[in-house]
Amino acid sequence: MGPRPLIVKLVILGCAFLWTGFVTAQEKSVNEEILDILRDKGQISEEKYEELLKKAEAEKEPSTFRVYWKDGIRIDSRDGRFKFQLTGRIMNDWAVFSADSDTEAFFNENFGSGTEFRRARLGLGGTIYDVLDFKAEYDFADGDADFKDMYVGLRKLPVIGHIKVGHKKEPFSLEDQTSSKYITFMERALPTVFAPGYNTGVLFHNVELDGRLFWGVGGFRETDDFGEGFGEEDEYNITARVTGLPWYEQEGGRLLHLGISYSHKFGDGDEGATVRFRQRPEAHLSPVRFVDTTDIPTDGVDLVTPEAALVFGPFSAQGEYFHASVDRANGSDVDFDGFYLFVSYFLTGEHRSYSKTKGAFDRVKPKKNFGLGKERGWGAWEIAARYSNLDLTDGSISGGELDDFTLGVNWYLYPNARIMGNYIFADLDDVGETSIFQMRFQVDW
Amino acid sequence: MGPRPLIVKLVILGCAFLWTGFVTAQEKSVNEEILDILRDKGQISEEKYEELLKKAEAEKEPSTFRVYWKDGIRIDSRDGRFKFQLTGRIMNDWAVFSADSDTEAFFNENFGSGTEFRRARLGLGGTIYDVLDFKAEYDFADGDADFKDMYVGLRKLPVIGHIKVGHKKEPFSLEDQTSSKYITFMERALPTVFAPGYNTGVLFHNVELDGRLFWGVGGFRETDDFGEGFGEEDEYNITARVTGLPWYEQEGGRLLHLGISYSHKFGDGDEGATVRFRQRPEAHLSPVRFVDTTDIPTDGVDLVTPEAALVFGPFSAQGEYFHASVDRANGSDVDFDGFYLFVSYFLTGEHRSYSKTKGAFDRVKPKKNFGLGKERGWGAWEIAARYSNLDLTDGSISGGELDDFTLGVNWYLYPNARIMGNYIFADLDDVGETSIFQMRFQVDW
Amino acid sequence: MGPRPLIVKLVILGCAFLWTGFVTAQEKSVNEEILDILRDKGQISEEKYEELLKKAEAEKEPSTFRVYWKDGIRIDSRDGRFKFQLTGRIMNDWAVFSADSDTEAFFNENFGSGTEFRRARLGLGGTIYDVLDFKAEYDFADGDADFKDMYVGLRKLPVIGHIKVGHKKEPFSLEDQTSSKYITFMERALPTVFAPGYNTGVLFHNVELDGRLFWGVGGFRETDDFGEGFGEEDEYNITARVTGLPWYEQEGGRLLHLGISYSHKFGDGDEGATVRFRQRPEAHLSPVRFVDTTDIPTDGVDLVTPEAALVFGPFSAQGEYFHASVDRANGSDVDFDGFYLFVSYFLTGEHRSYSKTKGAFDRVKPKKNFGLGKERGWGAWEIAARYSNLDLTDGSISGGELDDFTLGVNWYLYPNARIMGNYIFADLDDVGETSIFQMRFQVDW
Repeated sequence: MGPRPLIVKLVILGCAFLWTGFVTAQEKSVNEEILDILRDKGQISEEKYEELLKKAEAEKEPSTFRVYWKDGIRIDSRDGRFKFQLTGRIMNDWAVFSADSDTEAFFNENFGSGTEFRRARLGLGGTIYDVLDFKAEYDFADGDADFKDMYVGLRKLPVIGHIKVGHKKEPFSLEDQTSSKYITFMERALPTVFAPGYNTGVLFHNVELDGRLFWGVGGFRETDDFGEGFGEEDEYNITARVTGLPWYEQEGGRLLHLGISYSHKFGDGDEGATVRFRQRPEAHLSPVRFVDTTDIPTDGVDLVTPEAALVFGPFSAQGEYFHASVDRANGSDVDFDGFYLFVSYFLTGEHRSYSKTKGAFDRVKPKKNFGLGKERGWGAWEIAARYSNLDLTDGSISGGELDDFTLGVNWYLYPNARIMGNYIFADLDDVGETSIFQMRFQVDW
Repeated sequence: MGPRPLIVKLVILGCAFLWTGFVTAQEKSVNEEILDILRDKGQISEEKYEELLKKAEAEKEPSTFRVYWKDGIRIDSRDGRFKFQLTGRIMNDWAVFSADSDTEAFFNENFGSGTEFRRARLGLGGTIYDVLDFKAEYDFADGDADFKDMYVGLRKLPVIGHIKVGHKKEPFSLEDQTSSKYITFMERALPTVFAPGYNTGVLFHNVELDGRLFWGVGGFRETDDFGEGFGEEDEYNITARVTGLPWYEQEGGRLLHLGISYSHKFGDGDEGATVRFRQRPEAHLSPVRFVDTTDIPTDGVDLVTPEAALVFGPFSAQGEYFHASVDRANGSDVDFDGFYLFVSYFLTGEHRSYSKTKGAFDRVKPKKNFGLGKERGWGAWEIAARYSNLDLTDGSISGGELDDFTLGVNWYLYPNARIMGNYIFADLDDVGETSIFQMRFQVDW
Repeated sequence: MGPRPLIVKLVILGCAFLWTGFVTAQEKSVNEEILDILRDKGQISEEKYEELLKKAEAEKEPSTFRVYWKDGIRIDSRDGRFKFQLTGRIMNDWAVFSADSDTEAFFNENFGSGTEFRRARLGLGGTIYDVLDFKAEYDFADGDADFKDMYVGLRKLPVIGHIKVGHKKEPFSLEDQTSSKYITFMERALPTVFAPGYNTGVLFHNVELDGRLFWGVGGFRETDDFGEGFGEEDEYNITARVTGLPWYEQEGGRLLHLGISYSHKFGDGDEGATVRFRQRPEAHLSPVRFVDTTDIPTDGVDLVTPEAALVFGPFSAQGEYFHASVDRANGSDVDFDGFYLFVSYFLTGEHRSYSKTKGAFDRVKPKKNFGLGKERGWGAWEIAARYSNLDLTDGSISGGELDDFTLGVNWYLYPNARIMGNYIFADLDDVGETSIFQMRFQVDW
């Protein structure tokens, strides 16, 4: 096989370049390019070229997954149509309680100290066939398999965007929609007890205006920790949340988030429908709930919660007001409410991260990870303070009123690991005061 | 290094081709071939060639797994001796019951509506060291970790083929051996209650005659949902199943399947061995079992079930008859039986898929997956009708007789996702009638 | 593009060789080397060379994991900073008990036969960001999710080496620190009941002197199976273990291991702190514990255990003595103790494997795996004998004294699968004798 005339070489080379550059630049592998060159230089016959090209194509294995780390263990097919994440989180809490004698007497409980695993989750989720979403996530804390996200859905749908059927959090409240991995304090604020939380149903959600507007709406059956709810009482919820970003500068981490959630619980008190709100003092190891309405037979409950958050670089503020109107089946209607407000500041210059697709806060990434030796770094440090109020007393219902003041320090060693310390001063109206110091050791993947 | 004489080049090239073609054609990578060419063309010294060849060999990483999607997440070593599958399934059911007043009075139950997760499984299984099989599969529905397949075994054994020790389904009944992922209706037919189901023991199985004959036989201890059975009563089962394909045309999906299962339960009624059959009306959300023998002290039970199925392209029919003879420890012997027959038809032209290695039905794959836009497709649509009968009344045992008539529609969006709708008319002899409408949202991986 | 002068070629080639050899020899891929050659031979322009080099670099995907098998499923990033293991184990036990009539009368129990899954675990653990360790391992035997290793920690720390916070085994006793996957008999020896086992706390551990010295020390809260312990009684343990290898020859598998463990349990009997030791006869399927102190109110417990093991090729011997001093809150102090001694011999020439980082025994690897046909091999065969004693009677506490004599045979088919058979003769002092035959089918990954 002699050398081809220069003009032929040039034409072939030119075509190869054009083809490479304009048509499939990102799909051609280095091996394929080398083969082109060898052919163009006359080092390889056309037959051999075709044979090896076919082989190189096979080696690319388009159905093969790429397994890699990006804030977690990710498994993506080369064509992006199949994506999986193998997730999990461990949160080990330690707490010391110090209650005054009136509080101990009221609850007939000697508050002590101890440890627990607040969350111990494993899960697998992803997208298959490009548009089908699923997730199966279990929380094994306490030894049973509580269901968390457990759904199947479709994405990329016209207009509605996403539909999910199964066990999901009802779309309600900024604090409740922000993952426990990312919340600023160890426990969500007292009044988030009103948020319906996880139930089984159908959820529609999407973002509009380039992510500046998030909306979610769904219908849910009230279910147990394992997604099951059956009976005659027909307790269904309709819940919706809309949030927006009137101000958003990704650069520098500046945003103003505003939103509102509404939920109506349908039920027939004569058939056994009830509602109950009860809450611990922002410390899950507490052996008792400090406030508790007990079961209230109801014909319907209305919940409404406006929410606001401001992020201005390392500084952020967040607050929500919760209002619940209970249509009692056997008595005059009652109203409960609560609110919280907190501020946080990153001493190391990071800022709270925001997910437009969820209309909620996201993973904090330290500017410099923790490391010793030549990788020296101290992670991210955040300080925060919160005031929370929850009033479960109205009419003939004496659930109690609780005020919490909390100071927090968070040390983010890595994007996926942090140590949290919270001091809580809980003032239970007409009863007494409790001081709590608690720490959390957290990792997720 | 000057150009080699043509004859030398040709000889080298010829040898390379021969070697490539006959010895290691499928093992030589593109890089190795390119190196051959560079050497043959005199672009690279022999030393460099050898060095880079070694490097290319190392880059192939024969111990590295290929992770890919094939109806599920698969992890295979390049040499095929190690293979894993990370499996799971989610089935979210919704049902509305409508029972007549006689039925509600009989069970003292107001049938309502609701939802549950019928199955919520995670599992890992595979082959290691070429011949060792294992599988660990848990069902977390209801919050506890029910054991499903949980075994270790050997494959490729002479004559017996496969041996498995641990928690497995006893080999009995076509419908019971067909995975819940692939069954045509949401619940298996009424009389499959006789099938022994999952127990802990040893199972032998294999196929003969190019897969036209399947056989399985095993000895099992009757165990709880977690594979444990211990005590004095010594309740062991011997169970066997043989099936064949007198007619099988893979092309076009045509087959006739015939088979028979037999099981003997050993036990000593004086030591506490009992047997109990009870069944819901093909709707798992039913709060009561419609028929129930209650515990019968027994010295042994014989079960026999002939089975038949016909697939003729999109049309299929399937039926089984179940017979149970109970050797009562304290009374005259009793016989129970039941049967079912169903037909199904794929409106979109698919056909039911069959697994020769299991002698049971397999995954349905739509001709065109569900998609919008340019990938437009509507998945596979199947309609089906079934009649089931279960008679648990004989002699002094009045377990009741139940007849079910069921209509079903299945929408297979993808090979791994479907939505099922079933309407069931259940007629409980001498009591009353119940109508049930139920839906299932299913995904597996 | 004409040929470059020879001197230029040589210089470029020389630089490339030098650069390749001294700077990044192990990081340069075959593709990159081929590109160098093509450029050096003038087959490719500098621009194209640079372009393709960038592409080849991208194809190496340094953030991509390598998934492979090495005694388990491993997922490592190319740079070694992220490593995961997807672990699990299945142990299916079968046992037949034969107790004399005195023993059956004493326990009012008819010992029978049966099966259980002794362990059924799934877990995920690894290292992220180079220094952060975590592990989440669940045991689903019996249907609940018992926590095993469940921690987050840091490694590569100066002086202390490793710190782990969460649910871990307290560092105590050679037999207790050796994984259930690797222990020589189906159950650990009787007196390991004194080892504190899994609790929630903080553990420091490291090796010194090139692995010849292991030390571990930790503080733990006594917790339930799910890592939770809370209350007023303040039951904390301080536990430490130091072991050394005065003799260690990796070649030929010869070593002498000596060590000692100490643990102090703090508690206030007036606040409800208690201690209880109870044990089965080295057969987990036993429906009763043969010896049992019942709850003893205590102000503190001291445990001390010297340990020794000798491996001399296929032969090994191991023994430990356990002593517990209980400071009773309401009565005179009591002392309990026990010991065991066993010998084992590999008929097929393997030797017990040792992990320096744990100061405990490790995975046995057969010289020849089990295989048929041309891969013919019979795995590893080990025989062993053990004598165990446990005395829980002292002062006014009559927990009983139990002596066990055990013969064992282990067939290791592969490094990850074995079948065990144990015959146990249990002599319960002043009561009677029980013979037990039990088998285990084990696989782990």
